[in-house]
Formats: sequence, structure tokens, C-alpha cells
Amino acid sequence: MKVANSNRQIIFVARPRGVPDERCFSLKNAPMPHLKEEGQVLLRTLYLSVDPYMRGRMNQAAAATGAFVLNESPTGGCIAEVISSKSHDLKKGDIVFGFLEWAEYSISSTKDLKKLPSFYTPITSALGIYGMPGMTAYFGMLKIGQPKNGETVVISAAAGAVGLVAGQIAKIKGCRVVGIVGSDQKVDVLTKEFGFDAAINYNSPDFEKALRRVCPQGVDVYFDNVGGDITDRVLEIINKHARIVLCGQISVYNLEKSESGIRNFPILLTKTAMAKGFMVYEYLPQFSDAIHEIAHWVKEGKLKYREHIVNGLENVPKAFLGLFKGDNIGKVIVKVAKI
Amino acid sequence: MKVANSNRQIIFVARPRGVPDERCFSLKNAPMPHLKEEGQVLLRTLYLSVDPYMRGRMNQAAAATGAFVLNESPTGGCIAEVISSKSHDLKKGDIVFGFLEWAEYSISSTKDLKKLPSFYTPITSALGIYGMPGMTAYFGMLKIGQPKNGETVVISAAAGAVGLVAGQIAKIKGCRVVGIVGSDQKVDVLTKEFGFDAAINYNSPDFEKALRRVCPQGVDVYFDNVGGDITDRVLEIINKHARIVLCGQISVYNLEKSESGIRNFPILLTKTAMAKGFMVYEYLPQFSDAIHEIAHWVKEGKLKYREHIVNGLENVPKAFLGLFKGDNIGKVIVKVAKI
Repeated sequence: MKVANSNRQIIFVARPRGVPDERCFSLKNAPMPHLKEEGQVLLRTLYLSVDPYMRGRMNQAAAATGAFVLNESPTGGCIAEVISSKSHDLKKGDIVFGFLEWAEYSISSTKDLKKLPSFYTPITSALGIYGMPGMTAYFGMLKIGQPKNGETVVISAAAGAVGLVAGQIAKIKGCRVVGIVGSDQKVDVLTKEFGFDAAINYNSPDFEKALRRVCPQGVDVYFDNVGGDITDRVLEIINKHARIVLCGQISVYNLEKSESGIRNFPILLTKTAMAKGFMVYEYLPQFSDAIHEIAHWVKEGKLKYREHIVNGLENVPKAFLGLFKGDNIGKVIVKVAKI
Repeated sequence: MKVANSNRQIIFVARPRGVPDERCFSLKNAPMPHLKEEGQVLLRTLYLSVDPYMRGRMNQAAAATGAFVLNESPTGGCIAEVISSKSHDLKKGDIVFGFLEWAEYSISSTKDLKKLPSFYTPITSALGIYGMPGMTAYFGMLKIGQPKNGETVVISAAAGAVGLVAGQIAKIKGCRVVGIVGSDQKVDVLTKEFGFDAAINYNSPDFEKALRRVCPQGVDVYFDNVGGDITDRVLEIINKHARIVLCGQISVYNLEKSESGIRNFPILLTKTAMAKGFMVYEYLPQFSDAIHEIAHWVKEGKLKYREHIVNGLENVPKAFLGLFKGDNIGKVIVKVAKI
């Protein structure tokens, strides 16, 4: 493999108002970066992760993970190959995970990189099932949802990277698992391939009735990735002591103004229920144990995952924006390098 | 003392739509009840408790504690004196706590009564600081709020039976405590007599600004007795990892239809905050320990309480309805018997 002379990058050129579109990004040809300092490596990006939480980072007042900087390349989880090294820790050919620029090549300090364990097969699993989405599903469901055998668990955006895993973990714990999705195709995939007991399409005019029909015992755990009206409908049928895992609120990420809805604190009070927001990185010290448990489930065939691979750095904006249109089933990953 | 020949009772005669008024109740002269079965006692009601949660019991689809039955006497916490006994467990003159009718006299099985410990002085404290409101403040604040030294704790309806105690418990835990109340008189009482660091009047046009001014470090614990717009204002300034204790939602109890408001799950998510509704009776096995800790604080002068005594059974409806107008400071208790 010959190292290129130029380095294509995605540049964040405009903060969105409301729904973001491709005008927020541009493609740029930058010079190839060169290694200068000791302890650094030159990396070729193999795979790049786009995630719904990044919508928050497009805003000036950004979330915990830091705002995208205007006229710079956004950063996010990537799998990369070491091309050359000025470090004893990593050598040419090593495959690493890091928070890197949306670019074909980049320089990173080795202390910000993690060499991938060999059981991460395929290596893209480091961005999905063994990465942030897998950890989010695992800790959100187990630490906050605390599903118990026989309980009913409802998951919104259930065909997404997090939802698919969260649902299967609830199945492993012996629950009746219901997914809420945006298409009949996703309904089929969840029930036929991923073992969900039921799935319903929120675009169906029958949605509210269908939700009640597939949750005859009410809802004990609601793993919420969407918020808004869908969440209002679920809250109406929660059981006493229900747990609401606030994982994402994708329905409101693109709103310019706060939306009004049915007040939900009276429902939480009446049902002595609990709602809790969480950030997966608060569980960082426990990631290693979680990854091993997930790997065990995968090996046993109890947990499946799906990756939705998009080709080409130039398609990163499209892949990212597709998350808000429900284009994907499973984890969306962009394959950057031709490998 | 001569036992009367007739027994005055309050009768629940109409379910309210929206805000209840005195037409929901009537006063009735019933015959004096007589002891028949072994294990029962005839009781003279000394004091009777009216509480905000009873608003929910006026509805057909009532809360956990059971709907008031039309054309019968409501029931609630009472302190009573044993007038005559067909039981070995209680004797004439004993003072007991029980869930009794809103009446001058009633019959009860002794197994539904609790003889008052001698340190309940005055005996009305069994309905307030050592009763349901004190337990609610104690478990809500400590188990759900979990206030830590130096944190800011905000309490709505802070001059009520629960709020006054909850605030002082947060002070004992080393917090900055802010009360939200409905009058300037209550502001004075909270800050001058009960040690609150600040109190603000939600009827002031300056309320929102004042709230931010008295919470310069944001809000770590919000003990919510009211819900609605006041709660929306507090949520805007919660800190990361905030805990919202959902104790009451008095602003919505009298609404005929669910009200809309700013969606709060996105805020809970962004702040990795938690909101939890609770029912104090879930902590019943721990009441005894709680009562002893509270008694200790009272003895040390760290915890004060106030009772708002209304005279005469005929004034029960007025005392109850006054809870929704903010008439009281501290625990509202109706003195039924002339003792």
C-alpha cells in the first residue's frame, strides 16, 4: 500500500438550525500530515462511527463530549491502522481505536489510542457491539432498567445500534421484549431475526392500540431513545415501579424550540416510577467486564448484532444524516479506507 | 366525660370536577355506634389529619390508598381515645393512631390501631412530624434526594407539612436549602424560624430571576410537591446528576385534563439526572428507625415543626380545601373532640 499525498477530510462548515443537512459539511483535500513528535503515530482511518449523540455536538452549547468546531474536522470513534510510528507502544500495522478526525489520515498520540484485542472480530465491532453503542445498551438496560424475569420491556428506536442490543439483553434476562420502530421492514427484522416478542411501527395509524395490545401486562422497563409523543404513549401504560432509561431523545434533537408535551412527573409519581438519564462513560471502569460478558453472549449465540456499512469518506455526512431519517438497521459505520 | 347519643360525621356526597369545594361534603347526625364484636373498641376522635394526597382519593379511579366512597364518611389518619373496649389489647383511656372515619366516634378492630408511644408529645405529632408527613419528608429527602454536604436543595410547597421538615433535614445534611412558597409571610417564616438559607414567593413577578439568584450553584436536589410551571423553572437550572424527588404534584391534582408543559426527559438526559416518584408506605419497615432519628433531631433542637390546628369536625372540609389554597404553614390538623 502506497501512502497518498493528499488527505481528504470532512469539514464542519455550518451549525444547523433545526434539521441538519449536507450543507453543514464539506469535503476538503488537505496535505498529508507528517509525524513530528515522539510518542505519536500516523494513522490511516479504516472505519468511522456516526452516532445520533453527535447531533448535540453540532450545537454551540454542546453536550459533555464537546462541540464540533466550525471549519475543522469533526471527531468521533474510529478504527485505524498505524502507518508509521514514533512510539515504542505501537508499531506499523497495529489496529487501534481512537477518537479521530473524519479524515483519511491523522496523527495521534499513542496515549489516546487503544490497541484492539484480537477477539474483536470483525474489527468494526469495536464501534458497535463492543463500543459505545454496546456499552450504552448494556449499562442502560442492566444498571437503570434492571429488567426482571417475566417483566415487559419496551424499547424505542429498537432497530438502532443501541436498541437492537438492549432488546436482546432484556431477552437474556427473561423479559417480554417489545420494539418500537419506524417501518414494517424493521418490525420483521426484530421479530424474525433478533428474537423480539413483538415490534410495532409508530407510523401505523393503529400505533397506540397496537402498543397496548402487545403489552397486555403493561410496561415495567422503557428504554427510551426517542422521547416526544412516542414516549407519551408508553408512559400511559407503565406499571408501578417502572424504570425509564433515558438514553436518547432523538425526536427533540432537531427542534429549534423546546416542545410541549403531556407532563410526565404526575405519572411517575402515581406509578412510583423512576426516570434517569445517563452517560455511558460514567461506567468506564466497568467497560472491560461488560465487553467480556457481551462477547460470551455473542459466542453462545444469545446476542446478535448487525452493522450497516457505508462506503467512502465522502458519504459520511449522508450516513450521519440518515440516522435521523431511520435509514439504518443496526450500527452505521463508514468504511473509509479501501481495504 | 359523658358519651353523646349522636355521632356527627362528615359525608362525601359528590366527586369534584376540577377544584373541589364544600359541596363535595355534608355534615350528618348519625346514631352512636355500639361495640358488638370481641377485639373491637369504641373510639372518640381527638384529632384528624387532612392531607393533600386525599385529593386523589376523591376521584373514582383513586390512588393506592383507595377512593373515598360516595355517601360514606372519608377515612384518614386520626388520633383517638378508647372509650370502651371489648379487647385485651387496649383499655379505656388509651390513646391510639388509626385510619378512622371523619366522625366524632367510631368502632375499630384493635389490630388496625397503634397505641401511641409516650414520646409523641404533643400527641398531634403522630399526624405530623412522627406521622405520614414526617416519614414522607425523611424518606423522600434521604433515600431519593440523597443530599450531600454543600449541595443546593430546592423544595416546593416548602411551608407545608412535608416541605418544612424536608428542608430542615437537608440543612442537617449540610446543604444550602431554598424554599419555594406562595406568600411573603411564608418566606419570612422559613428563613427566620426554620433556618432555610433562602425562600422565594412564586407569586412574585420576579420569581424566575429570584430562583436563579438564590441558587448561584444550580440545583442538586429538587423535592417537588407541586409540579407544573414551578417545576419547569427549577428543572432549567438543575445540575449534572441532580435528583428530583417526586413527592406531590398539587398543581395538577385539580386539573380535569392533563396539562401540557415543557418536556423534561431531554433535560434529565442532558444532566444525567434522575426523577423518582415514591409512596412513603413502601418504607414502612424502616419507619421505627426514622421516627427515632427524627425524635433525636427534635430533642437536639435541629428540627422544628409547626402544626396548624383547626377546631371542630364541621370545619374539616374547609381545612382540607384550604390545603389547595396554601392557607397553612406546617401540618393542618382538625381538633375534633373538646379535650
